[in-house]
Amino acid sequence: MARNSSHATGLRVQLPLLCFVFQAAIVILFSFFVRYNHETDSSLWHQSNHSDMENDFYFRYPSFQDVHTMIFIGFGFLMTFLQRYGFSSIGFNFLLSAFSLQWSTLVQGFFHSFHGGKIYIGVESMINADFCTGAVLISFGAVLGKTSPVQLLLMSLLEVTLFGVNEFILLSLLGVKDAGGSMTIHTFGAYFGLVLSRVLYRSHLDKSKHREGSVYHSDLFAMIGTIFLWIFWPSFNSAPTNTGDGQHRTALNTYYSLGASTLSTFALSALLSREGKLDMVHIQNAALAGGVVVGTSGEMMITPFGALMAGFLAGTISTLGYKFLTPILESKFKVQDTCGVHNLHGMPGVLGALLGALVAGLATHQTYGDGLKSVFPLIAEGHRSATSQAVYQLFGLFVTLVLASLGGGIGGLLLRLPCLSSPPDSQCYEDQIYWEVPLEHEDEVQGHLRSEDTETQA
Amino acid sequence: MARNSSHATGLRVQLPLLCFVFQAAIVILFSFFVRYNHETDSSLWHQSNHSDMENDFYFRYPSFQDVHTMIFIGFGFLMTFLQRYGFSSIGFNFLLSAFSLQWSTLVQGFFHSFHGGKIYIGVESMINADFCTGAVLISFGAVLGKTSPVQLLLMSLLEVTLFGVNEFILLSLLGVKDAGGSMTIHTFGAYFGLVLSRVLYRSHLDKSKHREGSVYHSDLFAMIGTIFLWIFWPSFNSAPTNTGDGQHRTALNTYYSLGASTLSTFALSALLSREGKLDMVHIQNAALAGGVVVGTSGEMMITPFGALMAGFLAGTISTLGYKFLTPILESKFKVQDTCGVHNLHGMPGVLGALLGALVAGLATHQTYGDGLKSVFPLIAEGHRSATSQAVYQLFGLFVTLVLASLGGGIGGLLLRLPCLSSPPDSQCYEDQIYWEVPLEHEDEVQGHLRSEDTETQA
Amino acid sequence: MARNSSHATGLRVQLPLLCFVFQAAIVILFSFFVRYNHETDSSLWHQSNHSDMENDFYFRYPSFQDVHTMIFIGFGFLMTFLQRYGFSSIGFNFLLSAFSLQWSTLVQGFFHSFHGGKIYIGVESMINADFCTGAVLISFGAVLGKTSPVQLLLMSLLEVTLFGVNEFILLSLLGVKDAGGSMTIHTFGAYFGLVLSRVLYRSHLDKSKHREGSVYHSDLFAMIGTIFLWIFWPSFNSAPTNTGDGQHRTALNTYYSLGASTLSTFALSALLSREGKLDMVHIQNAALAGGVVVGTSGEMMITPFGALMAGFLAGTISTLGYKFLTPILESKFKVQDTCGVHNLHGMPGVLGALLGALVAGLATHQTYGDGLKSVFPLIAEGHRSATSQAVYQLFGLFVTLVLASLGGGIGGLLLRLPCLSSPPDSQCYEDQIYWEVPLEHEDEVQGHLRSEDTETQA
Repeated sequence: MARNSSHATGLRVQLPLLCFVFQAAIVILFSFFVRYNHETDSSLWHQSNHSDMENDFYFRYPSFQDVHTMIFIGFGFLMTFLQRYGFSSIGFNFLLSAFSLQWSTLVQGFFHSFHGGKIYIGVESMINADFCTGAVLISFGAVLGKTSPVQLLLMSLLEVTLFGVNEFILLSLLGVKDAGGSMTIHTFGAYFGLVLSRVLYRSHLDKSKHREGSVYHSDLFAMIGTIFLWIFWPSFNSAPTNTGDGQHRTALNTYYSLGASTLSTFALSALLSREGKLDMVHIQNAALAGGVVVGTSGEMMITPFGALMAGFLAGTISTLGYKFLTPILESKFKVQDTCGVHNLHGMPGVLGALLGALVAGLATHQTYGDGLKSVFPLIAEGHRSATSQAVYQLFGLFVTLVLASLGGGIGGLLLRLPCLSSPPDSQCYEDQIYWEVPLEHEDEVQGHLRSEDTETQA
Repeated sequence: MARNSSHATGLRVQLPLLCFVFQAAIVILFSFFVRYNHETDSSLWHQSNHSDMENDFYFRYPSFQDVHTMIFIGFGFLMTFLQRYGFSSIGFNFLLSAFSLQWSTLVQGFFHSFHGGKIYIGVESMINADFCTGAVLISFGAVLGKTSPVQLLLMSLLEVTLFGVNEFILLSLLGVKDAGGSMTIHTFGAYFGLVLSRVLYRSHLDKSKHREGSVYHSDLFAMIGTIFLWIFWPSFNSAPTNTGDGQHRTALNTYYSLGASTLSTFALSALLSREGKLDMVHIQNAALAGGVVVGTSGEMMITPFGALMAGFLAGTISTLGYKFLTPILESKFKVQDTCGVHNLHGMPGVLGALLGALVAGLATHQTYGDGLKSVFPLIAEGHRSATSQAVYQLFGLFVTLVLASLGGGIGGLLLRLPCLSSPPDSQCYEDQIYWEVPLEHEDEVQGHLRSEDTETQA
Repeated sequence: MARNSSHATGLRVQLPLLCFVFQAAIVILFSFFVRYNHETDSSLWHQSNHSDMENDFYFRYPSFQDVHTMIFIGFGFLMTFLQRYGFSSIGFNFLLSAFSLQWSTLVQGFFHSFHGGKIYIGVESMINADFCTGAVLISFGAVLGKTSPVQLLLMSLLEVTLFGVNEFILLSLLGVKDAGGSMTIHTFGAYFGLVLSRVLYRSHLDKSKHREGSVYHSDLFAMIGTIFLWIFWPSFNSAPTNTGDGQHRTALNTYYSLGASTLSTFALSALLSREGKLDMVHIQNAALAGGVVVGTSGEMMITPFGALMAGFLAGTISTLGYKFLTPILESKFKVQDTCGVHNLHGMPGVLGALLGALVAGLATHQTYGDGLKSVFPLIAEGHRSATSQAVYQLFGLFVTLVLASLGGGIGGLLLRLPCLSSPPDSQCYEDQIYWEVPLEHEDEVQGHLRSEDTETQA
């Protein structure tokens, strides 16, 4: 059985091969193309006479570290809620992120900082690489427990590439504003993952139903992820915005938006429960929707009041989604969304894009003063009216939805290649096929299986 | 039973109602009163010609994020030590904090940054809002497991308001120095919670005694909270102090004070144990007393030696409190203090206030140089002698104790309103009446109950 | 039995005594020697007219906080993988660190910032104190579960002192560069601990074999440590480097080195497994080798390509070490290395030192420009050729290995003093002899013991 499983999982040959090939390719590409930028290169930095404190490091590195914590601790532990998939959740999150941040450095570099045949990197490219990784992890959440690490690495290869294309179209070609990534990260990652999950639909997933839930302590581990995502989201949205009032305002807006989404999530979770009990799934996820929804508009003059309204609305929609939409998605649309990314990233992301278009459309020189140059350069320079900026924002959302869906579809077909083994329906959400699991747990598992078999018979 | 419990908990109607009403009120008040300040408003910031790095964001945001981590991860996980109350500990900590930081923005805004009918906010108001939330969470620790979320939200509403009043009297009217909040946060939060707990005294709490302890892994979850509180406390005490040497010195003093309190805690925990074993309760809590005790004096020239002495003393007193005082508080004074906040925040807070008065009384222009203007402006400007500053500090402690006790008393009477259901004596420290708890745990619980019933019979 | 164990552990008398004596000595020494430096002293800072933002606090404190998190959360939780040693892992990590950071402030102060009979401290001394603590915790990892807290405190006293001597010889006398401590921290800590473990060799440790493994949730707790170490390692290596491009470049190099070591670790873990399953031990440890290996060269112009190569190699060597070397170390060389520090810190540390020598040897004025003054002052000032700098680097590694081995040997003999009780072979990796452990766990333990006894008989 051991041998079979090792065959089935592709861990003995395909995973090592893929890791080695990917890493080798990245090393070679780095050697040809990637160089230190003028703020990380010893000689370049010392040519011009800055004071050291002007180095971008001091403006962005603390925010980067918060983002980095969200990617590896936040997303990683949020997905450990599954009772027997903790090793895979935190472990594959670790693997995919370590690969994606390297690969996206190249992809984003080619699109955004390619000068004279070289890619120049610094803390901003680190932030962008982590952001792109975030989109991959959102898609991972949709197919969590139903895909092998080999499949996931291939998904990352494709998604990082398309993320770069989409981001380039929006930010560079369309002049769309989306600092916190309501569109480029959340909407893109969610719909890429959902379409992918649709293509990989499993009609007999109920064979693993007994493993899809949480246990008491796995829910507490998941809360580590939730809270770190929640507290650092203001840093996430503000990490790439303009320095000075830009970063400051974005963090402030996100802080209040999250506060409001948390209250609406608790309210609806209790209100919608048959027994009048709170549901950990809602608290772990929907409370975060306030961060997603101000991803685009957080740097704009949305006002503290607007941030609260946005957060409140996002928490409400997200909780309703978990309660009513997720079951329908599976039964009617054959989309099996393990973490409910449609509720946390999909709908709040789209809402955030629409909100961003609205706030952009209301932009006036009076409200922004000379800061208009930083937030809406094209409007400030008279190339665009606020209204047309709003239209471009909406078009950006459209492009994102199209590219994400196409990408997810292609990705799904790719992952269905016969050579790529994926876990059998009866072994989904199960660490033991990929990990050496300590004995005690296996025992426990046997216990569970027995008790659950009897239940299912009853 | 399910229906009853939902009736009993007030989760189906009262909690959603309260969340919606509170959030709606906050949204409306924000729309009328809350505005971006000159460092978060695009137009205001760009009127004056600062360099971006002068924006307060770069002086305070990293410290704010550490404080934010302490509030949501630190306090939240510290309280997960209870074997069956982890969901409620981390969940209600989340809810109360999300509400309190919004409400305190308004309350503190009216008292501290109300100009021309508007409240202007930025990173400093975010730090102050988190600080006020800290006081609420300290009180929460005193009544942990014995109050419903509805009761706790009402408690927060009252406590945040009184916190603002007390803070205004101390800092603005009395010119008291208390950057790290030994008085305004720790003393206030502790005695507010202790008096509240006294009013809510349960004579039959022993019916839940079997649930008041920890289990092996719940103690490890609690250590996540302890360590994050411990490592970030230097940021907590220094977050609101004067920039430059002020923040730097405060962080340094707190760092060494915590080191000393940790050693004295380990020493006493082992020394006082009958079997010569360390007690997790002491390590999880008393080791933090070093942060509380330099809350007032941390920004002053207490000297590294003084910081060590203060921390050593605080750890000692706190551990002794857990060992000898807590049992007496319950048996003699009918104060049931779940987390022992009297030992971690009460006594060390008062000690910190006295220490602050002492160090203030010793302030000389020679010691502080031109920095005296920043630390003790009233002394520097000759409005006050060092001695009278010391007297004001002591008076500030007195005011804090009075207001906290009054507030806790009123709060207790409020929370005893018949319409506010609180958990029955037999259902305290139990997640299942508020949360959908995964099956496996209920089983476990049944197991526990049985084994414990037999015990209690024995 | 309880009384015996308390005798055996030395917790009732020796531990309290040691804590009190150590803390008292530190307090006295601080009162005589330790003073605020010009950036933490109110009067000194305000004498010169800096702008506040020039205070070193704003250049280094955020990095310090990341380092602080690595020391107390990272190392602490990484060691909680043991099924019944979680309290001791996180608790003793806490105690040793709280003592070491105070003691190293004095030791390093005497060697590095002793002017006019006083030690002047600020954020840099805090970073250095945490760094020295890191070395102690690495040694702790080698003897984890087999030593009493009393033994560990004495080990720390000795190791911190020798760390200071070694660091002084390398950085001050030899002019060696080692910002991230591949030599001073990782190599020193690892070989100190390994030799110590050799001297404390237990031929009957198999009596505790059944406790040396992990359980499902203890592996998840350990991942908290792993991930926090991984995400903050760029801050660790860059915390003490030159401001501006130095810190920025170091963080960047470490970021990519870690990415590569993670991929090679996953690849090899799967490749080397008999059943084609990933091993948590590899993921928890070897993935971090990328941070260790660029500890010396991270601040140099290693290029992003070089950082990737280094990381890839380090992850490979480290995983191979866990798979093949650790068993041999125990069977052939009688070195029992609980956490495999030889694989994570020893070999990657030596490799990092060699890499540092290589990169130093290749240093040219052309590559570094005027930055050569900051990275290699002795070369820039013409006191040394790049080649001789490389030789000095190699000599620094040699000195480190000698001092670490000598220190570990002396330490081992010291810890074998009859008066110092250490846990019996049958009680290693067991919390219950040092901690009040909640009932539920003891039961579990009994269960284990029974089942395992039967096993061992079979």
